[in-house]
Amino acid sequence: MTATASSPEGVTPSGEDQAEFDFSSYLAKTRELVEQSLDAALGPERPESLRESMRYSLLAGGKRLRPILCLAACELVGGDASLAMPTAVALEMIHTMSLIHDDLPAMDNDDLRRGRPTNHKVYGDAMAILAGDALLSRAFEMVAVRSEGVPPERLLKVVAELSLVSGAPGLVGGQVVDLESEGREVDLETLEYIHLHKTAALLRACVVTGALIGGADASQVDAMRTYANGIGLAFQIVDDILDVTASSDVLGKTAGKDLIADKTTYPKLLGLEPSRARALELVAQAKAVLEPWKDKAQPLLALADYVASRDR
Amino acid sequence: MTATASSPEGVTPSGEDQAEFDFSSYLAKTRELVEQSLDAALGPERPESLRESMRYSLLAGGKRLRPILCLAACELVGGDASLAMPTAVALEMIHTMSLIHDDLPAMDNDDLRRGRPTNHKVYGDAMAILAGDALLSRAFEMVAVRSEGVPPERLLKVVAELSLVSGAPGLVGGQVVDLESEGREVDLETLEYIHLHKTAALLRACVVTGALIGGADASQVDAMRTYANGIGLAFQIVDDILDVTASSDVLGKTAGKDLIADKTTYPKLLGLEPSRARALELVAQAKAVLEPWKDKAQPLLALADYVASRDR
Repeated sequence: MTATASSPEGVTPSGEDQAEFDFSSYLAKTRELVEQSLDAALGPERPESLRESMRYSLLAGGKRLRPILCLAACELVGGDASLAMPTAVALEMIHTMSLIHDDLPAMDNDDLRRGRPTNHKVYGDAMAILAGDALLSRAFEMVAVRSEGVPPERLLKVVAELSLVSGAPGLVGGQVVDLESEGREVDLETLEYIHLHKTAALLRACVVTGALIGGADASQVDAMRTYANGIGLAFQIVDDILDVTASSDVLGKTAGKDLIADKTTYPKLLGLEPSRARALELVAQAKAVLEPWKDKAQPLLALADYVASRDR
Repeated sequence: MTATASSPEGVTPSGEDQAEFDFSSYLAKTRELVEQSLDAALGPERPESLRESMRYSLLAGGKRLRPILCLAACELVGGDASLAMPTAVALEMIHTMSLIHDDLPAMDNDDLRRGRPTNHKVYGDAMAILAGDALLSRAFEMVAVRSEGVPPERLLKVVAELSLVSGAPGLVGGQVVDLESEGREVDLETLEYIHLHKTAALLRACVVTGALIGGADASQVDAMRTYANGIGLAFQIVDDILDVTASSDVLGKTAGKDLIADKTTYPKLLGLEPSRARALELVAQAKAVLEPWKDKAQPLLALADYVASRDR
């Protein structure tokens, strides 16, 4: 059983939209550009062992949803997506860094990630910690050193977003509460706190920074925040659902992990079907924000559906 | 036996300079300002456990040499030091972050730092990793979000410096080579590579970012780099000497650690007295760069001597 059943009519793009906009081709094309940029981003790292460890996790595949959201948001507000690519790469670096650190034995102690042994299983704990640290620093370097053609005041706002999302107000804060919640009864409020910080915050940073680089005004940035809050929580609910319904083979990471670790999840708290309903409701709310953009919003509309209907 | 014997005449400021410039009062006053700013910098961190862990290490005392160098460099080129304070705090956050991570059992496995149990001994490995991560992100936040009154293009250059020094081209790269060198015969070139990356690079970032915020031109920034390269290596040589000659009680960290871990050090490679001579030579070279600034260079001249003559 997979989660593809969770895409009823009215949530997937209508037939008309699909005729105008080929999402799977958009996704494949953009993902290919992102892969190329990720590959090119890690060049001169020394020593070689550190570079290998960084590349191992950064180039491990994955949906590349975060960089794609960033590029799509930049284009939505009329920007040139290529100007947002260094930031898109930075966001994937931050995401990868948080995965490497979260997987460590001292934290979630995960052996499998994206279908391969986790970074510390291959390179050891010390190198995994340092590769994560280096990827975080490198993310800021991408924005501050490697984003030619973007005005400094926009880049500084991007740095601000990245600094907030990667630290205590974002990923780190969420991970701390997550670790402290293990084995405890957790209410919906705490669960949403964890996911807003661990998942939604980074997805929000993706569309906000993309929009900032594209020259968005304050109200456009606000719309991006609202959009991202919806898909961010939906993303995590689907993640929890997949953890229950999909196999490790499909996921490329250890399935059922949340149950084993006695973590609170949406299916456990709300039940499986109500969790699906809540994900779809959140996606619908996110899409509603994009109405003023009409056809230009097609990539972000389709990405919202993609978040709710993905099966891995 | 302490290393205070390593301050012969001609290296300490002359009698005349000392009459005009009271270094110990300058140091005490500036350090107090830095302590206040560090204390104020960590306010809204959540959850409380994370905030405690971050504060524990950030406010553990220490010489605060790095922030003071930053403020002094800003003033040297005619800037208002208060504008550089958020960056000075950021540099101490990056320094603290690297200490927390380097002390972890997976790396140097140190129990004692600045006279107190290391972060992971108090808060556990997971929290120590996350507190380090959060301090690094917070450093960038200090510059990008909390540096009012400084032009964005200067702040972006500061972000660039911090991203390079904290990552593979700086602290992380140095730590990787350091870890890989343990138990091996290491030549002087490798030893200097480690120290240039682990120590000198951050001291350089201190004076360079301070100068950038103060509005330095390219040649002034270059002079700061040369100054910092000299005191950076001298600093590490003195560190190695103290590791041999001082007690754990004085150092506030485990003395003799380098010998126990079979690390290559300057005293081991060059001998104790030749190491002292090399430190003094490097400090003299650093000071020579400051000549054009005459009296305005007094704080940085005295700081260079301080690096060579400190006993902890």
